[in-house]
Amino acid sequence: MLQNDPDRLFPVDQASRPIARELYESVAKLPIISPHGHVDPRLLHDDEAFPNPAELFVRYDHYVTRLLHAAGIPLTTLGIPDTSGAVPTGEPRDAWRALCSNWRLYAGTASGYWLSNIFAEQFGITEEPNASNADALFDRISEQLATPAFRPRALFAQFGIDVLATTDDPLDDLAIHDALAADPTFSGRVIPTFRPDAYINPRTTDWAGRVERLAAWSGSAPSDYRGYIEGLEGRRHYFVEHGAVSADHGVLQPLTVELDTAEAESLFAAALRGTLSDADAARFEAHMLFQMARMSTEDGLVMTVHAGVHRNHSADTFHRFGPDTGHDIPVATQWVEPLRPLLNAFGMVEDFHLVLFSVDETTYSREIAPLAGFYPSVYIGAPWWFLDAPDAVLRFRAAVTETAGFSRGSGFIDDTRAFLSIPARHDMSRRLDAAFLARLVAEGRLGVDVAHDILVDLVSTQPKKVFKLDR
Amino acid sequence: MLQNDPDRLFPVDQASRPIARELYESVAKLPIISPHGHVDPRLLHDDEAFPNPAELFVRYDHYVTRLLHAAGIPLTTLGIPDTSGAVPTGEPRDAWRALCSNWRLYAGTASGYWLSNIFAEQFGITEEPNASNADALFDRISEQLATPAFRPRALFAQFGIDVLATTDDPLDDLAIHDALAADPTFSGRVIPTFRPDAYINPRTTDWAGRVERLAAWSGSAPSDYRGYIEGLEGRRHYFVEHGAVSADHGVLQPLTVELDTAEAESLFAAALRGTLSDADAARFEAHMLFQMARMSTEDGLVMTVHAGVHRNHSADTFHRFGPDTGHDIPVATQWVEPLRPLLNAFGMVEDFHLVLFSVDETTYSREIAPLAGFYPSVYIGAPWWFLDAPDAVLRFRAAVTETAGFSRGSGFIDDTRAFLSIPARHDMSRRLDAAFLARLVAEGRLGVDVAHDILVDLVSTQPKKVFKLDR
Amino acid sequence: MLQNDPDRLFPVDQASRPIARELYESVAKLPIISPHGHVDPRLLHDDEAFPNPAELFVRYDHYVTRLLHAAGIPLTTLGIPDTSGAVPTGEPRDAWRALCSNWRLYAGTASGYWLSNIFAEQFGITEEPNASNADALFDRISEQLATPAFRPRALFAQFGIDVLATTDDPLDDLAIHDALAADPTFSGRVIPTFRPDAYINPRTTDWAGRVERLAAWSGSAPSDYRGYIEGLEGRRHYFVEHGAVSADHGVLQPLTVELDTAEAESLFAAALRGTLSDADAARFEAHMLFQMARMSTEDGLVMTVHAGVHRNHSADTFHRFGPDTGHDIPVATQWVEPLRPLLNAFGMVEDFHLVLFSVDETTYSREIAPLAGFYPSVYIGAPWWFLDAPDAVLRFRAAVTETAGFSRGSGFIDDTRAFLSIPARHDMSRRLDAAFLARLVAEGRLGVDVAHDILVDLVSTQPKKVFKLDR
Repeated sequence: MLQNDPDRLFPVDQASRPIARELYESVAKLPIISPHGHVDPRLLHDDEAFPNPAELFVRYDHYVTRLLHAAGIPLTTLGIPDTSGAVPTGEPRDAWRALCSNWRLYAGTASGYWLSNIFAEQFGITEEPNASNADALFDRISEQLATPAFRPRALFAQFGIDVLATTDDPLDDLAIHDALAADPTFSGRVIPTFRPDAYINPRTTDWAGRVERLAAWSGSAPSDYRGYIEGLEGRRHYFVEHGAVSADHGVLQPLTVELDTAEAESLFAAALRGTLSDADAARFEAHMLFQMARMSTEDGLVMTVHAGVHRNHSADTFHRFGPDTGHDIPVATQWVEPLRPLLNAFGMVEDFHLVLFSVDETTYSREIAPLAGFYPSVYIGAPWWFLDAPDAVLRFRAAVTETAGFSRGSGFIDDTRAFLSIPARHDMSRRLDAAFLARLVAEGRLGVDVAHDILVDLVSTQPKKVFKLDR
Repeated sequence: MLQNDPDRLFPVDQASRPIARELYESVAKLPIISPHGHVDPRLLHDDEAFPNPAELFVRYDHYVTRLLHAAGIPLTTLGIPDTSGAVPTGEPRDAWRALCSNWRLYAGTASGYWLSNIFAEQFGITEEPNASNADALFDRISEQLATPAFRPRALFAQFGIDVLATTDDPLDDLAIHDALAADPTFSGRVIPTFRPDAYINPRTTDWAGRVERLAAWSGSAPSDYRGYIEGLEGRRHYFVEHGAVSADHGVLQPLTVELDTAEAESLFAAALRGTLSDADAARFEAHMLFQMARMSTEDGLVMTVHAGVHRNHSADTFHRFGPDTGHDIPVATQWVEPLRPLLNAFGMVEDFHLVLFSVDETTYSREIAPLAGFYPSVYIGAPWWFLDAPDAVLRFRAAVTETAGFSRGSGFIDDTRAFLSIPARHDMSRRLDAAFLARLVAEGRLGVDVAHDILVDLVSTQPKKVFKLDR
Repeated sequence: MLQNDPDRLFPVDQASRPIARELYESVAKLPIISPHGHVDPRLLHDDEAFPNPAELFVRYDHYVTRLLHAAGIPLTTLGIPDTSGAVPTGEPRDAWRALCSNWRLYAGTASGYWLSNIFAEQFGITEEPNASNADALFDRISEQLATPAFRPRALFAQFGIDVLATTDDPLDDLAIHDALAADPTFSGRVIPTFRPDAYINPRTTDWAGRVERLAAWSGSAPSDYRGYIEGLEGRRHYFVEHGAVSADHGVLQPLTVELDTAEAESLFAAALRGTLSDADAARFEAHMLFQMARMSTEDGLVMTVHAGVHRNHSADTFHRFGPDTGHDIPVATQWVEPLRPLLNAFGMVEDFHLVLFSVDETTYSREIAPLAGFYPSVYIGAPWWFLDAPDAVLRFRAAVTETAGFSRGSGFIDDTRAFLSIPARHDMSRRLDAAFLARLVAEGRLGVDVAHDILVDLVSTQPKKVFKLDR
């Protein structure tokens, strides 16, 4: 039997379970706000049928491919092309069989939870996937995907998505977003997000090329630091004009520093020449993160920071298969000292919003909740990546709430590439928040009416407020 | 309704809740031992009525002002004076209105729990504070505060406080303590605590001035390192003679080092000249922490160390409003290597007591419990600051008990400036210890009679033993 | 009453407790697989009666002696000889009295749990040890120990041990293992483990002497780096031929580096001359850990790494009483960057198994589970040392499962010197895994039949697979 208990994730004791169920039911059907994620806007623009279950559930989901890879199944079998061309890419049906035959690997995992939920609720599947039923399930799902009800726009409406933010290259012309917005047959709100990592971290592959293209857009000389900064400001403005509400930043450590223009120019020049030391590259990146905050205080884009991930740990896999192939690994993260220059400069600026996403859960109670409990600009990012999972989410709530209450959180962020997982993820978040609040009620720490108001806030009000979606 | 469930904080399952209730009831009314805190002894000396609820519950409680500040309310509105004089300080009634109008910010927080408990139990308030009832509550509480029953000494007796330790400047003449002790109309025990941070950390504002005043007291030359050390010894002795049982130390990291006298003298001289490098300042402070331990082995003062807080994170707020204004933020802390010199020198000295307070909860199971589980001198400080909250306390107990049992803890420390919160805090601690023990009983890990004995120990015996109050 | 509840460690709520009980009962009697531990093989070879309860439960168990030492009882009283000879070693009966008189120190600890379980189940004791019954218990246990049923081999059979791995010096001739294997009257499988720390860490006492003895065995010159490497390869081969399946490595931080032969030779020569800097010693050790992985890919020995313990924190105790006397203290550990060179070289090598044991629990969710969730070679070591305790084990399961599922763990490892504690420890692990799985079932996250299959895997299949015992 595929797990899909209607009371799933609620506390198991008889005192708090009914409270959790009642709280959950009051928000279960509220619209979905998705202010940060990685769905390709082309999906909704083109509105074509998803090709098959392997493309949909395996190939692009590195949460899923990871565990199959750990079990010894080559990434090529899962449909991921080997860029060296040395090994042929597997067939979708083989990737799907690999998933079904190894279904038990996902027992107890967040991916297993989401996939079960999607299979059961969206496809009406009742049997646990396995080697024997893999082909039948492949055919069954493929058939369903071919129907109009499974087209992206139909699902968008069925899921009840109110807003969906994508993540975009700063030089993207956002034509897809414009087309979607202009399309009278599609009423959903799909907004871009400015993601400048590759333009502000001089260690990125082809950073100089990006700087050059940015200069070409803004009409300045590529070697002109002033033009570089103005180019970024210009592109942010372009994003704002096209509906963006936030700028997202991925860094190893959230280092920030305020440099004078002379030093910044000198580091910029060295970076273009390729003569920047590692320490100076980190210094320049820290300067640029500081500048991004400064720009946010000027153009109003919410600043989100995702820190603490060592990207592409396996050099060989990165070389053969590229990024986002399952070996980004979290590391211990510090927020307090690294963010101090930024917060001393901008932490009190009115209407500046800075959302901190951590994948080092030790920082929730120690650093992030205390920072968000003082600085009006700082919000606690929802549990991210490996921590977006039932037990981890409850640990997160327990870690931050006693210090910062419920008003300092970002609201839930699904952060997903997997379009079909969006309702499963938001539903999981709502169940867990209901479970957490129900415990506080049962422990005499919160009235049930207050808990109800807070849950509605968490689902609806807070993400709109933090991401400035209600303007 | 204001929350004040008689079963609050007990486990919610039906097996352990009755056990917790029964355990709690056996200690609920035991006298309060408060061996570390920040109540001003003048409060009890002068025994004047508290002026109004804003002064009492908002103005001085940076746990409370933090979340209001994060919600965008200026500290001046909360009654905190802007030392630049640029903005007038708000009226008490406005500060109180800010609290009541934003009461929901505290849902689920430790401060919200304490305030609810105080309002309900001490003032008989049954309605949740809000914008509409703020003025009525202000008047009601103000009236009660004007009655004799709400004078500090009456509350001291009503709370059942057995011992209350204050925190004092090393050069304080302790006249207030002497007067209290000599007062035949007051029978409470109020003892000073030696807190020398500003005298031993050469980076402190006006360190040289303090060294000079210390020298003036002891009659040595300010530049005489030997006189500086003897001056500190002399002041500790003075505190011992006036009833102190402990010396408290706040440090960023608990670094210790044993320096020879020549190097110590040279660093001391450089510190007075203001030519000490950052690294050498840290080295001198580490040397002085080592010296404080040495002195404790000689004069018997219990050594308490509070580490791991980045003080005054917001430079602007510190500049305008001074310290303790809500932006002290914890950082990752190490204890094992930094304390090794100190513990190798003094860890086995008979009757030396060293209590370690951490606000980095990762160190509870990893470092502090293992250290306290071997060194006879080391005790595990109760959860401190942001961690003095229901879920955090249960995490603390779960983290340390399996390694160190119950005998290596400090007993509960309220560490508060908020006099009225003392019974609420001790009550919370007793409920949580009862809850933790009840779980162990229900899980078959502890007999209920043993659990009862342990709980009495935790409340009464252990803090007296660790802080040498039973002598 | 001595605690021995048949439902101990199961969840206390009425929904999950019966599920846990049923799951547990299905594996309670399965054979014990013990692929890593510290039992002396002589014990089984000689098969002599244990002398007395103090030798058995106090003297050699630094989990137990720690808390008595913290309570002020000298190690000599506990039967540990002072190598300086300054203080006479206490009598066994005194050590036993110390334990019984201080029994309450162990309330809530893992040691207290194991000892209670052993006393109750193996010796039929029903009363809690205390000062009054200490002598009677000593006599009673001593009598039982003198009976044939309490001989090591009889217990080995009674415990249902399938495989027991010991930990051995690389130059051990393994004659005891051979004799045991050849003994027709003993059918147990007792296998050695290669533990080369003292041969590959040049900071170890007498490292040069060990290198010399290794060279003598292999017939090379002691100063010959090539011979040193080949000698280690030869000894590993010798261990493989004598039944070893794994090589175990204890390091402070799991640093690895790939050096070219010239640099390795130069560091080796400096190490022999005693002129290696601390940094270079760490570099050489990191190189040797890398080499150990390389050898594992060639000879098939499973590589286990135990990292993050500051050994012998108290210099004085180490000097007087030697290692393993209760003051090894965990420190913050990093795995992601330090292991990268090793994993980039060998992480994908077929049939390479690398098991990571951490005593810094923050690394479970942050680093180890994500690494094991991608690299086919990496397995998550069971909670180790201070973390092998009921609450810590449940925290471990909650931390790793959502990221890595159940298939990436090592299975339970008792890691003990205390032979009689083996069944208590494995039983505790089975109960806790049953408890964890029961919660997932009750929360609707796992079917009960799947939970049952997983539990059998955890107890039987997984340790055999990870430690290559099924070949």
